[in-house]
Amino acid sequence: MRQNPARRTALLDAAIEVLAREGSRGLTLRAMDAEAAVPKGTASNYFPHRAELLAQVMRRILERLAPEEAALADTMSEKPDSALVVTLLKQLLERTRADRASHLALLELRLEATRRPELHAELTRFMAEQLEANIGFHLGAGLPGDRTGVVLIYLGMLGLIVDDLTVPDLLAPYSTDTLIEELSQRVLR
Amino acid sequence: MRQNPARRTALLDAAIEVLAREGSRGLTLRAMDAEAAVPKGTASNYFPHRAELLAQVMRRILERLAPEEAALADTMSEKPDSALVVTLLKQLLERTRADRASHLALLELRLEATRRPELHAELTRFMAEQLEANIGFHLGAGLPGDRTGVVLIYLGMLGLIVDDLTVPDLLAPYSTDTLIEELSQRVLR
Repeated sequence: MRQNPARRTALLDAAIEVLAREGSRGLTLRAMDAEAAVPKGTASNYFPHRAELLAQVMRRILERLAPEEAALADTMSEKPDSALVVTLLKQLLERTRADRASHLALLELRLEATRRPELHAELTRFMAEQLEANIGFHLGAGLPGDRTGVVLIYLGMLGLIVDDLTVPDLLAPYSTDTLIEELSQRVLR
Repeated sequence: MRQNPARRTALLDAAIEVLAREGSRGLTLRAMDAEAAVPKGTASNYFPHRAELLAQVMRRILERLAPEEAALADTMSEKPDSALVVTLLKQLLERTRADRASHLALLELRLEATRRPELHAELTRFMAEQLEANIGFHLGAGLPGDRTGVVLIYLGMLGLIVDDLTVPDLLAPYSTDTLIEELSQRVLR
């Protein structure tokens, strides 16, 4: 069968929507076809194996959540001080809010990974690469803070994003902007 | 129909296992009956409405994850310094690891809450009460740190627990003990 990259991406984007809306059990090939508005059987031609489908969905999510290169270069033209860290973290939260489906789908994949060893290995490898790349980016750009500080920022932001996506009103009394500023100020040294 | 509290709790514990293992879509009344090894139809007598079932599962999870009172009193007999905060946080992580099902089920409920407004309201109210109680406990015991510090510790620990449950090898190079110590030391002031 002929395959085309744009259609593959459209199917993966459809999978992300279905995952976010219905959970991993709701992610069927038929639901992907319907969501992408393609003929029945299309998704099964592109993704005959579920493990491979989930791995590709994961890569697509990380692609969608990554900052746009030109925008990042623009941000990074500023002095690498703690204010710039705060700007980067606020942009991360904004990207998550602008693409809730991707992050909700990633949480679904995290849970699905506790049930599927092959997805678990793939997810761990990818997340470890990402964390290592984040640390390298931070230290390489001369931003303030040590390696441990960057890991603590990562953990605090993960907690904040999980709450912001699932119980956003919980943090309303604290203002996420203030929490991000305080987190950076206290953790980076 | 006569109901008995021990059986109700056993059914809720069964629901937690099913949620952790199969996700929210796998949580059927029939699966609860099978997991609890009770006659078919039992769960549907106790929990005719899904919204009420999910709310009760949530309360049971928070009950299971709370520290045992005598053990907590014992821990709190120490001087309320930063070492005691570290001890409390390590105990929290140990409780999560000892009852993975409860925390995985809670993550499933967080995701389910994005789809069910009534669960969302209930979960937000409960989590807000818990966070407020945590802050009150921390400040009331004279432990070091301000209100914002306690919220930042909560967010960092949430991130750490999510990773520890779903991609535990990610943090292996950093040691969770060290991360907890550094988090407390840097954030509490």
